[in-house]
Amino acid sequence: MSSAVSPLAPPDVPEMPAIAGVKLATAAAGIRYNGRTDVLLAVMDQGTTVAGVFTKSKCPSAPVEWCRAKLARGSSSKGGLAQALVVNSGNANAFTGKTGRQSTALTASIAAKAAACSPNEVFLASTGVIGEPLDANKFDGVLGGLAETAEPGEWMGAAKAIMTTDTFPKVATATVKLGKAKVTINGVAKGAGMIMPDMATMLSFVFTDAPISATALQSLLKGGVEDTFNAVTVDGDTSTSDTLLAFATGAAAVNGAPKISRASDPRLKAFTKALHAVLANLSEQVARDGEGARKLVEIIVEGAVSKASARKIAMSVANSPLVKTAIAGEDANWGRVVMAVGKAGEPADRDKLSIAFNGIQVAKRGARDPSYDEAEVSSAMKQPKIQIKISLGLGKGRDRVLTCDLTKEYVMINGDYRS
Amino acid sequence: MSSAVSPLAPPDVPEMPAIAGVKLATAAAGIRYNGRTDVLLAVMDQGTTVAGVFTKSKCPSAPVEWCRAKLARGSSSKGGLAQALVVNSGNANAFTGKTGRQSTALTASIAAKAAACSPNEVFLASTGVIGEPLDANKFDGVLGGLAETAEPGEWMGAAKAIMTTDTFPKVATATVKLGKAKVTINGVAKGAGMIMPDMATMLSFVFTDAPISATALQSLLKGGVEDTFNAVTVDGDTSTSDTLLAFATGAAAVNGAPKISRASDPRLKAFTKALHAVLANLSEQVARDGEGARKLVEIIVEGAVSKASARKIAMSVANSPLVKTAIAGEDANWGRVVMAVGKAGEPADRDKLSIAFNGIQVAKRGARDPSYDEAEVSSAMKQPKIQIKISLGLGKGRDRVLTCDLTKEYVMINGDYRS
Repeated sequence: MSSAVSPLAPPDVPEMPAIAGVKLATAAAGIRYNGRTDVLLAVMDQGTTVAGVFTKSKCPSAPVEWCRAKLARGSSSKGGLAQALVVNSGNANAFTGKTGRQSTALTASIAAKAAACSPNEVFLASTGVIGEPLDANKFDGVLGGLAETAEPGEWMGAAKAIMTTDTFPKVATATVKLGKAKVTINGVAKGAGMIMPDMATMLSFVFTDAPISATALQSLLKGGVEDTFNAVTVDGDTSTSDTLLAFATGAAAVNGAPKISRASDPRLKAFTKALHAVLANLSEQVARDGEGARKLVEIIVEGAVSKASARKIAMSVANSPLVKTAIAGEDANWGRVVMAVGKAGEPADRDKLSIAFNGIQVAKRGARDPSYDEAEVSSAMKQPKIQIKISLGLGKGRDRVLTCDLTKEYVMINGDYRS
Repeated sequence: MSSAVSPLAPPDVPEMPAIAGVKLATAAAGIRYNGRTDVLLAVMDQGTTVAGVFTKSKCPSAPVEWCRAKLARGSSSKGGLAQALVVNSGNANAFTGKTGRQSTALTASIAAKAAACSPNEVFLASTGVIGEPLDANKFDGVLGGLAETAEPGEWMGAAKAIMTTDTFPKVATATVKLGKAKVTINGVAKGAGMIMPDMATMLSFVFTDAPISATALQSLLKGGVEDTFNAVTVDGDTSTSDTLLAFATGAAAVNGAPKISRASDPRLKAFTKALHAVLANLSEQVARDGEGARKLVEIIVEGAVSKASARKIAMSVANSPLVKTAIAGEDANWGRVVMAVGKAGEPADRDKLSIAFNGIQVAKRGARDPSYDEAEVSSAMKQPKIQIKISLGLGKGRDRVLTCDLTKEYVMINGDYRS
């Protein structure tokens, strides 16, 4: 499924430390692919809290509905707890009707047996083709073995098992002080196409040993998504399956980490920043692995009437096929940027609009900047990272969105996916 | 600029009759292209009424602002009249600031002199590259000659002169009774990329000899656009320049056609239908000439909670890069249709959703139709026209949108346009 590694892949892959209370294992269950792993089982210690953010699709996958239902139990005394996570690639278990619901229930029951917990503490995610029934029996006999062999260090293996059209595994880590104790945050993600908030088509799983209540974790996660995963788009298409789950084992409590029950706790400051950095790192990797991408594109909108307005304009530019193909052609076609600003429907005054590519101003207050040098801009457009800065000159609203270019390879990858 | 003719071009081109009161002429003014015409002048008899619908872009082109200002005079006693139309291709005169406004004023004054009318009765449209100053002096010496040589029959020449990346000229005609007199409606259009309501990136000019007041014509035009030009999308990108103008010379009055002052006049029934058909014909040709298109795609949404909701869902499907690339790959990937329905944000119930490709039901009430035959569907997907019918099962809202597939050629055309 995956082709050559994206030229935008990060050059350095971090060493992923173990997280106390989390063990991982992967297997090749033959769901769709041959010769590669396609199932991830994460087993967490008893008492691990969980939080989640999901696709806003009106046609969500069966696993998304499963996770939402389990998280909704969070308000009850036994809710907000997780002991197992099962992720498979190759089949999204989306638009599979009653069979899909039966499949999630069966998978959870197999996993619960393997991890010796309640099915209510099992979380599920599936990614791959939509509309094909997922045969959960394939997990029987697999998950039991995985639970036995699961190890703390299998982060790269986990990131690889959940890939679909991704060309490289996506991991990120941060270590930070909570109180006087060191806590760790590890994350894995997958996503390359059908990437658009909210969320990007994307699965991501974040684990920490920090002792944080489920409600506080939910609030931190939701706050962290807005400027990370929700600010990344590859093609404007939103998946039925987007899932971001966070698990906190609390194992760092034995080292003196304070137990946190509220997201507003001031002791969370460094942790919140580190969690945000992990989410930002993973979401940028998703843009860097955009299907067929050759350029990472950062769109900054400033001077908008509000941040929300800046976001809408940035997304309109980021999702414009004409802007994205121009960047693929290394053409600083700012006229198309004007078009995309104009079509966003947000307040914009043509005669106050300025545009810069990689720091070179090409348009100024509603017309071509007379001083701009085409050769200089052409040279800048050959860079693997392109920044488009749009200054509206109306207010103080500012936002930033990441995307990638639109290449022939995107069309080839997606014109030939199912067959 | 244009490559081989689209395989979706209509096989038959109609004979375009003359319209009493309209003369056309074209020239090669060397605005951008070499060896082809790039200016159209239409001269209309005194008393011709005019109506217009324009882009909703917040950054409209200078000619759009010019036309809007002239139409706004329509409420005054001398408003709503037109005697000349000047269209150029190669340069959109958009995002050209003060220079752009000066350019429209100069063009109108040159045209007014050539057509012996007031600049207030001159209408303008420009299409092509955004952000480059348009040198109106190029029209000096050209428009005068065109006014002298203008002829009633130059419809194909007119359609050719306004092309940019179009691969074929777009014309349509209808003849209909108004009262007991025969009246004619002729239209030309251009548009291939940057096509999305409201309007499609598109210039279209419709002429009739029917005697219809400016206010009635405006109302007819606005009503006709909703299910024609506003129901076509190529790439979701909205131009700064979209312009649809209608001119009614009233010359058929000498043959006994009644003078119509209100759009609600029951004598307009056949005329309204014919005008709608001309607009529908032209807008379908725009979809058939979508940049790089190999398939004409008709998306029908039925069973929505309202027509507006059906439109939003149809547009979400029509603009989905993943749906469009799947069709390019002749893949009946209905999972991506589910995705696009889900992301539209409109009421949809996964478990009531059914989908058919070219009449073959592939998904039924939230799951794969067990009876569908992949080979039959694969064969159907090889057709040049693909119909996707989405049944939501919620209400009576229905809508139809036309688009095309997304091919490597689209990326090539647009990655290499300006250079």
